[in-house]
Amino acid sequence: MQHILAADIGGTNLRLAITDQTGKILDESRVQAELSLHNAASKRAAEAHIITTISHGIHTFLKQSSYRANSIGIGFPGFFHGQTGVLASSPNLPLLHDFRLAELLSNSIDKPVAVQNDALCAAIGEHRFGAGQGQNNLLHITLGTGVGGGLILNHKPYGGEHGMAMEFGHLCVERAVGNSRPCGCGNTGCLESYASASAVIQIYQEKTGLRCSAKDIYHKARSGDDVAQRILTQAGTYLGMAIAETIKLLDISTITVSGGLSGAWPIIHPALIESLDANLIPPLKGKTTVLQSTLADNAGLLGAAAIAPIR
Amino acid sequence: MQHILAADIGGTNLRLAITDQTGKILDESRVQAELSLHNAASKRAAEAHIITTISHGIHTFLKQSSYRANSIGIGFPGFFHGQTGVLASSPNLPLLHDFRLAELLSNSIDKPVAVQNDALCAAIGEHRFGAGQGQNNLLHITLGTGVGGGLILNHKPYGGEHGMAMEFGHLCVERAVGNSRPCGCGNTGCLESYASASAVIQIYQEKTGLRCSAKDIYHKARSGDDVAQRILTQAGTYLGMAIAETIKLLDISTITVSGGLSGAWPIIHPALIESLDANLIPPLKGKTTVLQSTLADNAGLLGAAAIAPIR
Repeated sequence: MQHILAADIGGTNLRLAITDQTGKILDESRVQAELSLHNAASKRAAEAHIITTISHGIHTFLKQSSYRANSIGIGFPGFFHGQTGVLASSPNLPLLHDFRLAELLSNSIDKPVAVQNDALCAAIGEHRFGAGQGQNNLLHITLGTGVGGGLILNHKPYGGEHGMAMEFGHLCVERAVGNSRPCGCGNTGCLESYASASAVIQIYQEKTGLRCSAKDIYHKARSGDDVAQRILTQAGTYLGMAIAETIKLLDISTITVSGGLSGAWPIIHPALIESLDANLIPPLKGKTTVLQSTLADNAGLLGAAAIAPIR
Repeated sequence: MQHILAADIGGTNLRLAITDQTGKILDESRVQAELSLHNAASKRAAEAHIITTISHGIHTFLKQSSYRANSIGIGFPGFFHGQTGVLASSPNLPLLHDFRLAELLSNSIDKPVAVQNDALCAAIGEHRFGAGQGQNNLLHITLGTGVGGGLILNHKPYGGEHGMAMEFGHLCVERAVGNSRPCGCGNTGCLESYASASAVIQIYQEKTGLRCSAKDIYHKARSGDDVAQRILTQAGTYLGMAIAETIKLLDISTITVSGGLSGAWPIIHPALIESLDANLIPPLKGKTTVLQSTLADNAGLLGAAAIAPIR
């Protein structure tokens, strides 16, 4: 049976796994690796740094693992030209553009490599192996440091004209002056400013002066902390609004949610469903199921495994 | 060469045409026909009424035309199950559901018939013959009595899970209490409540006491009427917001606009572009062209011609 090396690449670490073709993780590892390029003098230096860092992580993992891999699939934080593995651009790595990432990694590691946007990989993973398995159409949402989205339409990943589809976290859910929070993208009122783990942490700190993890805020809410409850309910309410807008455009009936903040599901889900129902138009009401991911934080890794070239 | 009978069906009239396969209209007619079913006693009576009304209109047209048609394509105001020609439901004709419209019309007229949602037909027409010709992905917007949308993704019409995709006119663009206008769908703040011809007429009447056509309001605006200018600018601003949300989700780079209110393009377009740019995230800015339709009000009719079965 074919074994696949899957990699989920973040800003400061690589998650690596060997999987089989059924999405079973046989071996895994997490490697610290600084991808950001503060010191890179040029586009060429930045490119070399990325290739070296990823190749080194993969080589090291393969050396210590008892499994071998036939091919490699990678989820990467950036926008790709279709399924070419050419990185068009990456918001957090601005030196890189039109970068033949898959091809250069394949040359460096000497195995076939496919690379795709990380949020789209999570959607692919959830569609192939998780709660969205076999659906015609699927919206997968990640509530992490940011809010990400990936879209499967007619059983295929949809990347859009420039690989930038599903900037779901930047849907505008609050335009009211005073309530409309600033977002890292430069706009105000983006979903990400209310319904990401970082937003919840930030808002809680603003209201109470305390800096807690999203998990702690959830536990406080369950223990009766009003502020924590209101912040998580608000996250669910805004998430429901953004999902309603997406359904009005795309008529999708299955939505899956993963990421750290989805751990607060017992508070977020009812608020989300209430606001989803209030914001849909009558013929679309009651036609959508919103499910917590069954893959936890492995959706992206398993989606990366799913895109690996078949040998 | 094959000739096609194309029909664009509205609530109170049928537009009919004979076209060739290049989208050239060879003959056309508009027939008064009341489709609504206030007097229908049952689902069966309603279905019979629809089939009889449409068949009669088509027969009459074919009898008086010097052209013959090999097959028939129809745009109809309702939601369809995929490309089966089975009507799932129709907001304005609530008695109808799961109705084998294409099959029964085909039996009645004795020619092959295809039927699809009218707004989706307009997108198909614009993609095949109009300003969106040959684009990978296309959003077509109709600014008429309501605001409609149709979507082409990867060169194919996209209808969604229940044929209800692109309820573009019901995107929520105004949530502020006091400014958020009620919409026919039951929600408030829908794009349609600001950027349809009927909304513009209604708002102008509220502000001035005068009931004018959308065309008159446009001419007043061009002649320096402040109120008219503000209402049309507002329509463009809200339209730009709704387009921005759609682009953040779908990364579409070509958008076409038709319908009566698009006649106010010289005022609507600049306002639209300003608000589109303000609401997009940086990597998506400047990547979209918003074009006025080149098919005027024939987009739907020509889309209907494009879906007719090939014999």
